[in-house]
Amino acid sequence: MTRILGIDPGSQRTGIGVIDVDATGKCAYVHCQALNLLVDTQDFPARLGKLVFDLEDVLAEWKPTVVAIESVFMDKSATSALKLGHARGAAIATVVRNGLAVHEYAPRLIKQSLVGGGAADKAQVQHMVRLLLNLGEKKLQADAADALAVALTHAHMSATAGRTGLATALLRRRR
Amino acid sequence: MTRILGIDPGSQRTGIGVIDVDATGKCAYVHCQALNLLVDTQDFPARLGKLVFDLEDVLAEWKPTVVAIESVFMDKSATSALKLGHARGAAIATVVRNGLAVHEYAPRLIKQSLVGGGAADKAQVQHMVRLLLNLGEKKLQADAADALAVALTHAHMSATAGRTGLATALLRRRR
Repeated sequence: MTRILGIDPGSQRTGIGVIDVDATGKCAYVHCQALNLLVDTQDFPARLGKLVFDLEDVLAEWKPTVVAIESVFMDKSATSALKLGHARGAAIATVVRNGLAVHEYAPRLIKQSLVGGGAADKAQVQHMVRLLLNLGEKKLQADAADALAVALTHAHMSATAGRTGLATALLRRRR
Repeated sequence: MTRILGIDPGSQRTGIGVIDVDATGKCAYVHCQALNLLVDTQDFPARLGKLVFDLEDVLAEWKPTVVAIESVFMDKSATSALKLGHARGAAIATVVRNGLAVHEYAPRLIKQSLVGGGAADKAQVQHMVRLLLNLGEKKLQADAADALAVALTHAHMSATAGRTGLATALLRRRR
């Protein structure tokens, strides 16, 4: 069993999605939320501090074994890239500091992995997240849904890359 | 006595400068170095991890009471802004996580504070850092010198803002 934490970092809100993957590659929903970094203050270092502390709470509570994060699609202005960079830097640093590996996935790969096309829109991705995790009509905050999407992508890519879990499961079934 | 840690963050090298400021506002050199984040790996999350661990070593060894960091002058491309943002985000997050306040100073203000003109070049700033800290001909790595410069700026700005230390010292001298 692997517990994957997906992170969708932002300097105002950071999405958190936790899923479990069993040896057959089957994914199960565990938790999702959006960390609101604007609650306490408009002060930027304090926002990054809140991100660190909230993320450490998430790591302590949900105990993921691996972390997946969306890499940045560079259609952004330098100013927004800088802000996003701060949030991603703080998040990645916190994860590495806590001894976990971070895997990065490009937005296009996430869409391809979930919907089958790199040009899929957010609504399609959310739809597939709901479907793959049996969430029914559960209301998903957009950042939390994106975090679940990157976690699912890691689950799929790991299965594709190694197939160890899947192959073992198939062998077991045949016996 | 205040011990100021100045940080000049970068995703390849991060400058570290430590100075002490006494109640009269007099600054004394303590330590400077450049953290080389490329030593172990080219892997970006690992670089941020090295930044966190190296910076935590610096905090533990030199025990600063406050931290100063250069804010970003946005003449950068989105790509370099994003990389710099990651390093700054990781550095600020580490400092806040360790319970220290971070003060940000614009490059122009640092030049004005040290050289008296916002258009001063790097060589002039380095010269003033050497002069103000009695470093003589000591060879300074560029990032380390910039880190000392922002630490000195914080010392000057705190003195200007509060003047408590300075005023107390002057009163004492008069008695």
